Amino acid sequence: MESQANPLNITLPSYTIHFGDLPKLTHKGKVLIITNPKIAGLHLQTLLANLEAKEIYCHTIPDGESYKNFETINGILEAAFNHRLDRHSLMIAFGGGVIGDIVGFASGIFMRGIDFIQIPTTLLAQVDSSVGGKTGINNHFGKNLIGLFHQPKAVYINPTFLATLPKRELNAGMAEVIKMSVCFNKSLFESLQNADMTNPNTLLEIIYQAISTKAKVVAEDEKEHGIRAALNYGHTFGHIIERQSGYGTYLHGEAVGIGMIMANQLALKLNLLSQAESNAILTLLQHYQIPTTYRIQNVESFYQAFFLDKKSLNDKIKFILPNGIGNVCFKEEIPKEIVLEVLGEFAK
Amino acid sequence: MESQANPLNITLPSYTIHFGDLPKLTHKGKVLIITNPKIAGLHLQTLLANLEAKEIYCHTIPDGESYKNFETINGILEAAFNHRLDRHSLMIAFGGGVIGDIVGFASGIFMRGIDFIQIPTTLLAQVDSSVGGKTGINNHFGKNLIGLFHQPKAVYINPTFLATLPKRELNAGMAEVIKMSVCFNKSLFESLQNADMTNPNTLLEIIYQAISTKAKVVAEDEKEHGIRAALNYGHTFGHIIERQSGYGTYLHGEAVGIGMIMANQLALKLNLLSQAESNAILTLLQHYQIPTTYRIQNVESFYQAFFLDKKSLNDKIKFILPNGIGNVCFKEEIPKEIVLEVLGEFAK
Repeated sequence: MESQANPLNITLPSYTIHFGDLPKLTHKGKVLIITNPKIAGLHLQTLLANLEAKEIYCHTIPDGESYKNFETINGILEAAFNHRLDRHSLMIAFGGGVIGDIVGFASGIFMRGIDFIQIPTTLLAQVDSSVGGKTGINNHFGKNLIGLFHQPKAVYINPTFLATLPKRELNAGMAEVIKMSVCFNKSLFESLQNADMTNPNTLLEIIYQAISTKAKVVAEDEKEHGIRAALNYGHTFGHIIERQSGYGTYLHGEAVGIGMIMANQLALKLNLLSQAESNAILTLLQHYQIPTTYRIQNVESFYQAFFLDKKSLNDKIKFILPNGIGNVCFKEEIPKEIVLEVLGEFAK
Repeated sequence: MESQANPLNITLPSYTIHFGDLPKLTHKGKVLIITNPKIAGLHLQTLLANLEAKEIYCHTIPDGESYKNFETINGILEAAFNHRLDRHSLMIAFGGGVIGDIVGFASGIFMRGIDFIQIPTTLLAQVDSSVGGKTGINNHFGKNLIGLFHQPKAVYINPTFLATLPKRELNAGMAEVIKMSVCFNKSLFESLQNADMTNPNTLLEIIYQAISTKAKVVAEDEKEHGIRAALNYGHTFGHIIERQSGYGTYLHGEAVGIGMIMANQLALKLNLLSQAESNAILTLLQHYQIPTTYRIQNVESFYQAFFLDKKSLNDKIKFILPNGIGNVCFKEEIPKEIVLEVLGEFAK
């Protein structure tokens, strides 16, 4: 896949994140685009107008987190075999985070791995999930528990696609931007507090800052042996919320927003976060209409669900907690009663 | 996983092949052994007597190539989640080639990849499939079309396990040894011709030579961008035979044996192999009671099936053909009519 240079591109060790209008893309082999009917209706023409390849096929999958499963993977593989893709073929993930995760996985196991590129069309996928090579599907034990690391050959971030994104999805994407700022980038956090979103350049600048932050973290720790795990702030709680409420009730970013509030309560109790900082994060989430409340039905079973999460090793739960704003820390030795106390606050 | 040093060990860039009696194995985390009921009955006690870990679980899968599918993978993943394996856990593939391929795949996608080791109990798995990190499953399009490269942390070759191996499976394993010798090791080929199999040390020496040959090829080309593909000699035809006859009719090694005969016919026609060399390979295969005849029902559909094989890129079939004994070459431009002519000889 070739495309023109661009001064805003962000270079990672093994691929480039291209920022701005979709450039002309060419591929010598066959290409299979995977998207959903909605994105296809809105933007497939734009992609096709910029794509040149030996043969181009399109496979659509249903929209939503609940379809992030083996059945959808099998559908993509069937399409790839039916169109006789080979080891020189390319898959394109064209859509949101679910499509990116699924296509990364499917391309990673098709004939023991072929190339894929990410063309994310949602804010969440643009600022977060399209970068870093984490791929996977959900099962009844939890989120993203089956998958692999498979780095894309390139990522194309075209903010123009966001013009058609529903407000709710845009807000859910902002939750991941806020997450990134709380963990790693205090000045981004302050920009978000003062952002004038009626100015179109503001969103562009925020997206760019968020991707740059993510790219730096991923470049440092591709396979999440250390610091990259900090990006899971809010996710340890959020994944359980998504699963318990049935995938699809909350958007992923919304569940992460609630998860951040839960993590913050724990951070408050451990004096890692001040009440003022906690309030500032809450206010920012609420500003983007991200839900910040959740009713836990059963505190003990919520606690037990931590142990199925990939972040929980050796029967210890590794909590990712903000340490002030712009800093993050890992805590593995928090006594169960303290965690239960915090969960209890959400059970009232 | 730790074990003692041994002068017969073969060291690959990322792991060691241990040769001889199973040493004491220790692992700090949880271990999930995957085997089949037959192997469990014969050898599980031996493994358990040599294994120390935090917790040890055993999951059995049905025996046979026809179970090398997503359903079996899902069963292993379910067991892993039920026993709450984590990223520090280990899977052990304890059995033949099917178990090795499946466990390599399952461990490669469980929580985005955990460690696994190979303890092969069949000749075929010991000399060939346990080394090199190719993992995968079959689907209705063909063999090993879905999978990934996932290198084991270690391979333990204990020829003692072969004492209980049925003669037919031992012979099928010899097909892969013969394959290796024809492609890469003329002196091994000559040893095989003169082998006195009533001497127990002869088999040991042959196994050792075969593994060493395989290890060298894999070390040179881990992801099969070049020379490693030569190990697929006989497989381009063999995979189609396995699929067309229904997985389970022929053992994998048997289908490869027939495939070698087909490849040899093509090599003869192209003057890569002499009639005497071709006969010598045939005689050796027959000596180990490996089937060397097959009736192709439909020559054209057999030909079309090549294009679904991973080795066939860009609508060209890459044939792997012996170039004398101990040498191998790739041919991509063989006219269809010549291939059909050779296939026609098997349709009579």
